[in-house]
Amino acid sequence: IDVGSPATSHWVREVWEFVREDTDRVIFSLKAGLAVLLVSLLILIRAPYNVFGTSIIWSILTVALMFEYTVGATFNRGFNRALGSLFAGILAVLVMQVAMACGQIVEPYIIGFSIFIIGAATSFMKQLPSLAPYEYGFRVTLFTYCLIIVSGYRMGSPARTAMNRLYSIAIGGLVAVFVNALVFPIWSGEQLHRELVGSLHAVANSLEECVKKYLADDGSSLPEFSKTVADDFPDEPAFRKCRKMLNSSAKFETLASSAKWEPPHGRFRQFFYPWPEYVKVGAVLRYCAYEVMALHGCLHSEIQAPYNLRCTFQPEILDAANQAAELLRSLAKDINSMKWSLHGNLLKRVHSSTERLQRSIDMHSYLLTSTHEIHDCPAKLPESQDMSDQPKESESKNEQNNLSNAKLEQAESYHEAMRKQQRRLYSWPSREVDDFEDEDVDNKIIQKMRAFESTAALSLATFTSLLIEFVARLDHLVDATDVLAKMAKFKKEYTS
Amino acid sequence: IDVGSPATSHWVREVWEFVREDTDRVIFSLKAGLAVLLVSLLILIRAPYNVFGTSIIWSILTVALMFEYTVGATFNRGFNRALGSLFAGILAVLVMQVAMACGQIVEPYIIGFSIFIIGAATSFMKQLPSLAPYEYGFRVTLFTYCLIIVSGYRMGSPARTAMNRLYSIAIGGLVAVFVNALVFPIWSGEQLHRELVGSLHAVANSLEECVKKYLADDGSSLPEFSKTVADDFPDEPAFRKCRKMLNSSAKFETLASSAKWEPPHGRFRQFFYPWPEYVKVGAVLRYCAYEVMALHGCLHSEIQAPYNLRCTFQPEILDAANQAAELLRSLAKDINSMKWSLHGNLLKRVHSSTERLQRSIDMHSYLLTSTHEIHDCPAKLPESQDMSDQPKESESKNEQNNLSNAKLEQAESYHEAMRKQQRRLYSWPSREVDDFEDEDVDNKIIQKMRAFESTAALSLATFTSLLIEFVARLDHLVDATDVLAKMAKFKKEYTS
Repeated sequence: IDVGSPATSHWVREVWEFVREDTDRVIFSLKAGLAVLLVSLLILIRAPYNVFGTSIIWSILTVALMFEYTVGATFNRGFNRALGSLFAGILAVLVMQVAMACGQIVEPYIIGFSIFIIGAATSFMKQLPSLAPYEYGFRVTLFTYCLIIVSGYRMGSPARTAMNRLYSIAIGGLVAVFVNALVFPIWSGEQLHRELVGSLHAVANSLEECVKKYLADDGSSLPEFSKTVADDFPDEPAFRKCRKMLNSSAKFETLASSAKWEPPHGRFRQFFYPWPEYVKVGAVLRYCAYEVMALHGCLHSEIQAPYNLRCTFQPEILDAANQAAELLRSLAKDINSMKWSLHGNLLKRVHSSTERLQRSIDMHSYLLTSTHEIHDCPAKLPESQDMSDQPKESESKNEQNNLSNAKLEQAESYHEAMRKQQRRLYSWPSREVDDFEDEDVDNKIIQKMRAFESTAALSLATFTSLLIEFVARLDHLVDATDVLAKMAKFKKEYTS
Repeated sequence: IDVGSPATSHWVREVWEFVREDTDRVIFSLKAGLAVLLVSLLILIRAPYNVFGTSIIWSILTVALMFEYTVGATFNRGFNRALGSLFAGILAVLVMQVAMACGQIVEPYIIGFSIFIIGAATSFMKQLPSLAPYEYGFRVTLFTYCLIIVSGYRMGSPARTAMNRLYSIAIGGLVAVFVNALVFPIWSGEQLHRELVGSLHAVANSLEECVKKYLADDGSSLPEFSKTVADDFPDEPAFRKCRKMLNSSAKFETLASSAKWEPPHGRFRQFFYPWPEYVKVGAVLRYCAYEVMALHGCLHSEIQAPYNLRCTFQPEILDAANQAAELLRSLAKDINSMKWSLHGNLLKRVHSSTERLQRSIDMHSYLLTSTHEIHDCPAKLPESQDMSDQPKESESKNEQNNLSNAKLEQAESYHEAMRKQQRRLYSWPSREVDDFEDEDVDNKIIQKMRAFESTAALSLATFTSLLIEFVARLDHLVDATDVLAKMAKFKKEYTS
């Protein structure tokens, strides 16, 4: 192989990245090599070979099929293998006794029939949703049963065949379990813990990225949606992580069910550590992430609020999003360090910044509705300010006054921007289906334009509503994390 | 077992339901039983036993580990097994020759070292994302290599051991493949096809269910969000199917990669049938479904548009949703029957009903913004009607006039309803974090109330925006399905 060629070096770099991302991967490989080497020694060295004989090759098979990435998964698979083999062994011996009692002619028929029945039964049962996690156990039952009963038939003494098989499987299983659990163990629990923390960060980053793009971009540079679906939004790494997280429910459940098999270890020194709570927090987090998906949908929507209008509410939107992201990161930090601080202050800040956003939307809601009414607005604005202009809050109100005036100026240019965006707006719907009536076209277009403009402006309301809904769901996330912290006995911290 | 006990009968009913849902499951079980029976016969009957000897038990193992649900998956697994075994066999014979040439003392060291290297290398490579689909192949390579080299070392003639092993694996593999493909075959392609059609129906049903609930319910009977997250929205079967579909991307990809292994069959008589296109249509459909998730989020949001306001736009919302669902169902029907009609008319109808919704929102947008301005509205309404009151469209305009008047009446009672909902609205945010300032509370509350009211009203705008965005994404779905139809050579139909 030519190491200098670009394809090879690209591949080497890829493998190197893969290793650097998680060095446990190399450790696992070396452990797997060690485990098969250890069982092979039982044949390669003369002393154990004289004791066990060639049936020890079943140990090698067991190690190769049973050695999983994490300790919990290996335990789980070992349990499946042990129970399946044991059940198959007992059943095979019983059926063999019955068959032998029935005489030599009937014997093969009984054996054949029993093999068919066991094959069909295990294949059916492993499909049942409630038994699906034990799929491997059913596979083991099937082939162990066949092997024992068939070789018993040809070589006699099925009980001895069964025993031989079982103890070599047991040796293989024990080697696999010991190597996996004692040599640089990789714990499912630790992985689950890290996965949850990573998911919280992913959602926080994705939210910030999405809001930042929404406010920064004037819409012209956004590629078309259909294209970006295909090539996976290459310029939005945080979004891709968040979307990956949406598909991780199966991963969470697998890790949690493996983690249940693991003894207390490392940071998780409690018996019956509440692993299922991680899955629940993950589920609530996923519900928050759905809102981020919807926000992202707004960002790439073909009907877009004009840039100026988005700028009008920039400080409030940005503040709310940043506060929400901060809360998520604080949750992630707490879970990561297994400490628990009260999140009251942070929640307070998120809520008040969301309220500020709501109030701002409320005060300038005329901007969101039909643009042809824009000239009535200045008359209305003072009235809404009169109502809220109380002496006790004069400072913050002054701020708001300035804000309002700035917004008013922006609103003037907004109408202008709207006209510029016309072409883009009119390009929706993208398929030409509206050219069937040619009478009164001009009037129709004007009407349609107005409806589009209104929808476009309201899309900002959609964006903020989704953001507010995201914040509302954070309450549930904090609650779920609270439960986790209590059950896992995180250390309490009172400085928040 | 007491068959009459409620637990048993419940379990029996569950199994029965599982079978009735898809009878292929029983067929698969019987086929698996048949396959193991067939290979077992090679030992049970004397003639083949005299030819093959006991090494035929490896065929049983092969069948048990290789027999998969669909034809494509079995082919794929068989390919992995064949290539893995072949590679392992060749490598084992080569290493054995080298080891034997090095002399008796060094021999076991070389063998042990090679086992460790192979164990570590296969375990590492099967983790690489690009090689992950061949995971089973690497497992097979590992244990076949160990078995051949170890038993070769103890029994001599590794080449003969390897040959024996390989042909018994080949026999097992052939039996598995033939039984799977010739006796009531279950095709991945057929499953993928059905899965896509089912997903289209799931999204259509979920959309209709969600919109219906949104319009029918006055909000008081909706259970709290956090509770329903836990118990999975029991009263929304269509939504649960849709959510399941969101997590089905892995399933689509597995089926498509299995389907590639299948020869032309049944309805799919074309070589290189475009299975990957199914995955693409599924991806675009998932993007549509994210909007349904967001709509569902609106439905269960704690900040809710008042019932009256929702009723105001009921006909338009309902019409748009129904049209969109009909388009989805028509796509599903077309794919199902492998025909292709032009969906221009349906798209036209969806777009025009969406436009009607946009126009209606535009005309009555004052309802969505600050409620304290409601008394200015009647004065503004005629103006917007003047603009659109063109003689040529008098009929539809009259309709709209009546509609507008009705809406005006509803708007009056809307203010009333708003007051009633106050308690519910004020319950948000659900955590008590706002009681830190006690000065000027009344005024603050009034201000806050107004902001909440505005947000609540705007939540209707959010709902409609999401619906419109859903419709916009349908264009992409139709495009993707168009490509599929062309590449799969669906029969064209010109009556739409």
